[in-house]
Amino acid sequence: MKATVHVMLKNGVLDPQGEAVRHALGALGFEGVSGVRQGKVIELDLADGTSEADVNAMCEKLLANTVIESYRVDLS
Amino acid sequence: MKATVHVMLKNGVLDPQGEAVRHALGALGFEGVSGVRQGKVIELDLADGTSEADVNAMCEKLLANTVIESYRVDLS
Repeated sequence: MKATVHVMLKNGVLDPQGEAVRHALGALGFEGVSGVRQGKVIELDLADGTSEADVNAMCEKLLANTVIESYRVDLS
Repeated sequence: MKATVHVMLKNGVLDPQGEAVRHALGALGFEGVSGVRQGKVIELDLADGTSEADVNAMCEKLLANTVIESYRVDLS
């Protein structure tokens, strides 16, 4: 089975990487880009029967810094 | 309007970051993790009327290195 984890900076946390992308898009002539947030996506190949709770534990312990980042788990 | 861009390394391209995560998960006692791929997710706040072709152009020119990365655009 597969799990996809999205990790994004929480709202209000400064995202310099996203700001850099926004400036670069403007410099390349793309107009109307008012905000950019950049995060991580992690695709996990898991043994069958792994529960969503297990994946949440992976996020809490390693994949996300829950002080400044939020995460979302999609199992498929 | 919003667009979400997923950028992942193509299959066959070595992903050292993903490998590091896989090892770390094993070291933390999570078993059955057979593969990890890490990519980027970029959320764009765009002016209304921006077309998917515009977002694809942003990906081709800046957001993805299409030699080694593939991207997917979701408009919402």
